[in-house]
Amino acid sequence: MFSVTVRDHMMIAHSLRGETFGPAQRLHGATYVVDAAFRSAELDSDGVVVDIGRAGEELRAVLAELEYRNLDDEPSLAGVNTTTEMLALLIGERLAERAHAGAFGAAAGRLDGLVVTLHESPVASASYERAL
Amino acid sequence: MFSVTVRDHMMIAHSLRGETFGPAQRLHGATYVVDAAFRSAELDSDGVVVDIGRAGEELRAVLAELEYRNLDDEPSLAGVNTTTEMLALLIGERLAERAHAGAFGAAAGRLDGLVVTLHESPVASASYERAL
Amino acid sequence: MFSVTVRDHMMIAHSLRGETFGPAQRLHGATYVVDAAFRSAELDSDGVVVDIGRAGEELRAVLAELEYRNLDDEPSLAGVNTTTEMLALLIGERLAERAHAGAFGAAAGRLDGLVVTLHESPVASASYERAL
Amino acid sequence: MFSVTVRDHMMIAHSLRGETFGPAQRLHGATYVVDAAFRSAELDSDGVVVDIGRAGEELRAVLAELEYRNLDDEPSLAGVNTTTEMLALLIGERLAERAHAGAFGAAAGRLDGLVVTLHESPVASASYERAL
Amino acid sequence: MFSVTVRDHMMIAHSLRGETFGPAQRLHGATYVVDAAFRSAELDSDGVVVDIGRAGEELRAVLAELEYRNLDDEPSLAGVNTTTEMLALLIGERLAERAHAGAFGAAAGRLDGLVVTLHESPVASASYERAL
Amino acid sequence: MFSVTVRDHMMIAHSLRGETFGPAQRLHGATYVVDAAFRSAELDSDGVVVDIGRAGEELRAVLAELEYRNLDDEPSLAGVNTTTEMLALLIGERLAERAHAGAFGAAAGRLDGLVVTLHESPVASASYERAL
Repeated sequence: MFSVTVRDHMMIAHSLRGETFGPAQRLHGATYVVDAAFRSAELDSDGVVVDIGRAGEELRAVLAELEYRNLDDEPSLAGVNTTTEMLALLIGERLAERAHAGAFGAAAGRLDGLVVTLHESPVASASYERAL
Repeated sequence: MFSVTVRDHMMIAHSLRGETFGPAQRLHGATYVVDAAFRSAELDSDGVVVDIGRAGEELRAVLAELEYRNLDDEPSLAGVNTTTEMLALLIGERLAERAHAGAFGAAAGRLDGLVVTLHESPVASASYERAL
Repeated sequence: MFSVTVRDHMMIAHSLRGETFGPAQRLHGATYVVDAAFRSAELDSDGVVVDIGRAGEELRAVLAELEYRNLDDEPSLAGVNTTTEMLALLIGERLAERAHAGAFGAAAGRLDGLVVTLHESPVASASYERAL
Repeated sequence: MFSVTVRDHMMIAHSLRGETFGPAQRLHGATYVVDAAFRSAELDSDGVVVDIGRAGEELRAVLAELEYRNLDDEPSLAGVNTTTEMLALLIGERLAERAHAGAFGAAAGRLDGLVVTLHESPVASASYERAL
Repeated sequence: MFSVTVRDHMMIAHSLRGETFGPAQRLHGATYVVDAAFRSAELDSDGVVVDIGRAGEELRAVLAELEYRNLDDEPSLAGVNTTTEMLALLIGERLAERAHAGAFGAAAGRLDGLVVTLHESPVASASYERAL
Repeated sequence: MFSVTVRDHMMIAHSLRGETFGPAQRLHGATYVVDAAFRSAELDSDGVVVDIGRAGEELRAVLAELEYRNLDDEPSLAGVNTTTEMLALLIGERLAERAHAGAFGAAAGRLDGLVVTLHESPVASASYERAL
């Protein structure tokens, strides 16, 4: 099994709903360092899982839809509690849509899965993993 | 599949038994940077695997029982060769006990597994993974 | 010359005023990883610049006044453009006040200066340095 | 399940064949930070997956065959497109050969698998995972 | 005193001339992680040393002239032994030229100096510092 | 001004004397990640401050005298409170002795100073800086 991982980051504001979140119920923010890993059992004829440059561009495009925003005000996130896990899920689903729509070219058919990890601080992160 | 990972560290002294360890048979020490990852197939109604703050507190409590100590003198570790792998196992088992005892509240029932990783230096680490 | 550096972090929301900031003029947020370095030409009788534990507590106390907040709404920051440089200045001044008020005990008299560095992402940081 | 991971690095020159690689078709180079993880369901009588020192020496030996070279001119790599994925595969296969040849001593029989990860920059990496 | 630091990276091939370099006399390569720090005694009316986005763009432009190349074949580097120190000097001089040519706008007049640091591996780096 | 920095690490046991140290008065240990920076106003005819390989070997030799030991039992450290600052001083002085004894060859005469930094955990470090 092979995988390729690309990293980028985004800066957002949000608040979390639920007593369990304590002070994070207040409007605050985060720099999320985001890793997107693409998995495949085989390499293509170029010897790659997916072109690293292409993977980075797709991740950048997904993060651009969220960054420099207050997620509490985003219509596409209405009703979503934007925990780190939920953002990992959201980014993972959007990358999967792009893969299925052909954003990775011929590679899409070979991809077995992806893992999205968001690091919210040096001591905390969350991941979402799914098949493709 | 989702996971949440929290990080903390501890500083301990110990020695290792066995010729394979060479100079590490002498009394020395380590700063262990410890990652504890909790895995779950589903998120709870708050949108989390387990509250990151709670996870960090539980990891802190487990490390507090070991840190600033000479592990060679710890009664609870008598007869244990405290390799990085064995410490990962020990910390993983203690976190699992806490999960089963309800330390993570309602989340405990949903947790599928945990992975504990100890980084002993920038070039070496060991992990222990188990189901919950 | 000696120095001791402690690290902590905080998560905040804010917006920046000025066309130069482009999309960062919108309400967004950041995880700031904060390093506070204390400098002294001499060590005290314990062999330290300042106790690392004490230094960490003072930095924690200063960050606690800011974290999990929308800085745009903080009365103490009214009129301040909360750039990374300005936040480094603010945190540095607050640490200096604490040093002068005796928070570091006898060490305060020996301290020559401090440097506060805020990392806003893996690719950008800002520092403020001053004498004590 | 347990694992032990050791890290080292190598500096090489190479070029990549295929339009997908854009400017990386030109002769350039990389510092690869290489992680080799060894997995085992059980620990040996010393309490380890494999001795960390031994694991590091084996990884060093494999990287020494490649480092400070132009991979385009290496006879053993003739016809290979030396992408990060292909180099992970190559290093993984060479470590597996060494394991099967007894380089890890009695441990080799217990090892279940290995994962080799090459970080080519702070924002891109590739992995190869195989059973042993 | 304030400073702002931006980070980027480049991948190049080269060889070093001189017996002191041992195996690095062979054609090999490196991923250089490059930090460029800009220093100023005062902040401008926006509260910055220099806009972080602008600083990152200027660093990117300078690295783009070098990356994905074999430096041994670069006409602009003919006769230069491209050690890490020499590349730090080269990048620092090019950033200084851009500063003097107005690339940082009004900020250029206030800048006191810059420091360029190249990390060639996790265990080695070199810096060049100059006044502006 | 130029500098070259090399990094290595060591694992030791020790205890600290003085009430200020709290639980660190007990025998414990640390992995110290050690950076040694060598500064010079000029480069030599090879284009370096000091050969990075040579610098790394000298740092390794100094750390080898301390690592895998209980510093409380080291005759050469009798009466020394081995705080992070004191260990930075000790390592800095030993590197300076080596520089003066010609360990860095012709480079020694050009070196202006050195800085030794010990990272004892991800959140704490100490430095010692001196002229050469």
